[in-house]
Amino acid sequence: VDIDDRDKLIDLMEPLHAADIADLLEQINAYDRARLIRLYGREFDGEILSELDEGVREEVIHLLHPQVLAEAVRELDSDDVVDLVEDLEGPQQQAILGALEASDRLAVQQALTYPENSAGRLMQREVVFAPEHWNVGQAIDYLRSSEELPEQFYHIVLVDPRMRPVANVTLGKLMGSRREVALKDIAEEMFQIIPVDQDEADVAYAFNQYHLISAPVVDDDGRLVGVITIDDAMIVLDEENEEDILRLAGVGEESSLSDRVIDTTKRRIPWLVVNLGTAALAALVIAQFEQTIAVLVALAVLMPIVASMGGNAGTQSLTVAVRALATRDLTRANAWRVIRREMLVGLLNGLTLAIPLGVLTALAFSTPLLGVVIGTALVINLFVAALAGVVIPILLDKLGVDPALASGVFVTTMTDVVGFFAFLGLATVVLL
Amino acid sequence: VDIDDRDKLIDLMEPLHAADIADLLEQINAYDRARLIRLYGREFDGEILSELDEGVREEVIHLLHPQVLAEAVRELDSDDVVDLVEDLEGPQQQAILGALEASDRLAVQQALTYPENSAGRLMQREVVFAPEHWNVGQAIDYLRSSEELPEQFYHIVLVDPRMRPVANVTLGKLMGSRREVALKDIAEEMFQIIPVDQDEADVAYAFNQYHLISAPVVDDDGRLVGVITIDDAMIVLDEENEEDILRLAGVGEESSLSDRVIDTTKRRIPWLVVNLGTAALAALVIAQFEQTIAVLVALAVLMPIVASMGGNAGTQSLTVAVRALATRDLTRANAWRVIRREMLVGLLNGLTLAIPLGVLTALAFSTPLLGVVIGTALVINLFVAALAGVVIPILLDKLGVDPALASGVFVTTMTDVVGFFAFLGLATVVLL
Repeated sequence: VDIDDRDKLIDLMEPLHAADIADLLEQINAYDRARLIRLYGREFDGEILSELDEGVREEVIHLLHPQVLAEAVRELDSDDVVDLVEDLEGPQQQAILGALEASDRLAVQQALTYPENSAGRLMQREVVFAPEHWNVGQAIDYLRSSEELPEQFYHIVLVDPRMRPVANVTLGKLMGSRREVALKDIAEEMFQIIPVDQDEADVAYAFNQYHLISAPVVDDDGRLVGVITIDDAMIVLDEENEEDILRLAGVGEESSLSDRVIDTTKRRIPWLVVNLGTAALAALVIAQFEQTIAVLVALAVLMPIVASMGGNAGTQSLTVAVRALATRDLTRANAWRVIRREMLVGLLNGLTLAIPLGVLTALAFSTPLLGVVIGTALVINLFVAALAGVVIPILLDKLGVDPALASGVFVTTMTDVVGFFAFLGLATVVLL
Repeated sequence: VDIDDRDKLIDLMEPLHAADIADLLEQINAYDRARLIRLYGREFDGEILSELDEGVREEVIHLLHPQVLAEAVRELDSDDVVDLVEDLEGPQQQAILGALEASDRLAVQQALTYPENSAGRLMQREVVFAPEHWNVGQAIDYLRSSEELPEQFYHIVLVDPRMRPVANVTLGKLMGSRREVALKDIAEEMFQIIPVDQDEADVAYAFNQYHLISAPVVDDDGRLVGVITIDDAMIVLDEENEEDILRLAGVGEESSLSDRVIDTTKRRIPWLVVNLGTAALAALVIAQFEQTIAVLVALAVLMPIVASMGGNAGTQSLTVAVRALATRDLTRANAWRVIRREMLVGLLNGLTLAIPLGVLTALAFSTPLLGVVIGTALVINLFVAALAGVVIPILLDKLGVDPALASGVFVTTMTDVVGFFAFLGLATVVLL
């Protein structure tokens, strides 16, 4: 790019996959990006657009010549176009829709009527289906004579006369069976139907849990309207996991390193503000014991240890609980057992660590009672941490709040407050 | 189960998928589990074993009658058996291998010679392939006349005369093309070959990045030895994400809620011990300022605020960096840009939050200078937090250490030490 050699650039980029080109575009800075796109020009591929992160994508769409953009978009499958336009703002969305042929435009607009993050947005509308009473020979002849089969398909969906899917037959089974075998007899054992308004997280869960390859999507009347394939489900699953990780760290839905600094700053601030509030609460607790600390400054030195240990133990317990809720390993059926289990783990960890901490403290400050106080406070705080770490996510989940998003604040507030209160409170009673 | 009615149990479990039965077994306690398995008896399915978590799986294998176990295992595909036995201890592994037919046993033993977590363990050995010079008609005739096709396959792998894979043809394309078309001409554009010793995390990355459905696996000489399909890659991707989440929280590789309490306790302790050490380090820093605190106890009340804010900001920055490394969005090419970006974000967040914190502190303690001190300390700590949050994972990654596992300790130690030192140090200089 630096030497402005267009042919060389195109030679270099030729062997790269669209996803790699998109990664490249995300990793360079905005100025280089603009130069590269200007240079690359007409070669620009629709798939690159699909692979780009939101922020960069909008920028690139602005940079592309409308003609190039129109061509790029026309190459894409309709479900990729949906994915592309759903996050764009009005005028950009219109520009892309305008570039499509009428039939594709209709398909995209139809898909956009389904709720965001629903199966309807995820599915492709091209489905290969056959009447349930056909045999292998009829199906093969039908496929062989079809003019336009979808690019990728793995199953033939068997439907009843009212277009309701009843079974899936894999192409592999079809190829391996004799012509007179009924399709019904070689249907997959595992068969899941997905309602068009199902949340995409539930779709991904079903694919992962039941090892599905593709699944038919039905409308409110149970009629076949599309199909979702495993590659789409894999992307959703990956996104859901990513969201959980980022939310647990209080980074919100920050999507990418290529966002602008100001956007990133804005996204991270809310959580920090909340943390400021909870830290202030902890400070208030400490303030109640100012006189105790004034008498025994060693307490100020030691108190962060109790709080920090509690925070860590709480985060451990919390993370396990949030993940177990997400993967549905933690349900109403075993909630009580899991809670009892965590309490026991917290208690055991507390007792194990209280002994060395207590002994070391007693030695360092030549005050045996101080060792007893810090050890006891640690046991209390680790017990509360483990309990809060599992109970708070379960409660938030019951209230319909995403536990990954909000649990962290509550748990660390709890462990800070309890940690400082237990330690300073015990010290006041025992040592003064 | 409670009323010991075997037929009713079997009726109830009949419509459930193996994965759901496995979930059920994991969620009940060990006593009920044993009763259920005794009651369920011969109906026990090999697939249920595949779906179980490690800990519970070993328990269940112990409970099963050897006869039932042998039958259950014989139903499974060889790659599922590999998955099943690789985590088992010697005697259990031998028992299962002994139950297999000789040819299957060989296949499983062969697979076990590949390194753990490598493509060789993940692949299935049944591949459908064809010479590269064939046309559609030949391929269809060949498939139609094959006695035994794999249960699931999506591509025909084209190979050269030395059995080296050169391209993939999807079954869908094959069905949709005329007999005289050369297979080469309808091959997939995207084609990736996977070496048998490649790490499974890299395999999952390739599937996710290039939207692969299946990919041929080759030995050291480049010859076709198996195939990996997207459903296997999806499971690996999910596991990798799960590991990252748990490691970030310092929970180690804790696999499941169904582990025993004592195992869970042992797994969580190491991280807590490390945290005890770093907390002690922070306490040492505070101890240097005991005299300052003795004069002005308000400092003890306020100091956890600075440390806690730093810990949070550091975790935010760290989580984004660890994830970006895992998804390869953060590479050598853009490392400096990302570091500069994080520093800027840290500084902006610090300045934004320092103002309200400083003002409130000044008012609450009627000491304007105290407000200036805490505000300045906060800016310093948030800047260091953001910087450490991105630099430490990058360094660990360069050293070959998993950044998800170890970054947390370093970053929070850093923010604790810097937070206390900056706040108490400034206070000593400015206020005394």
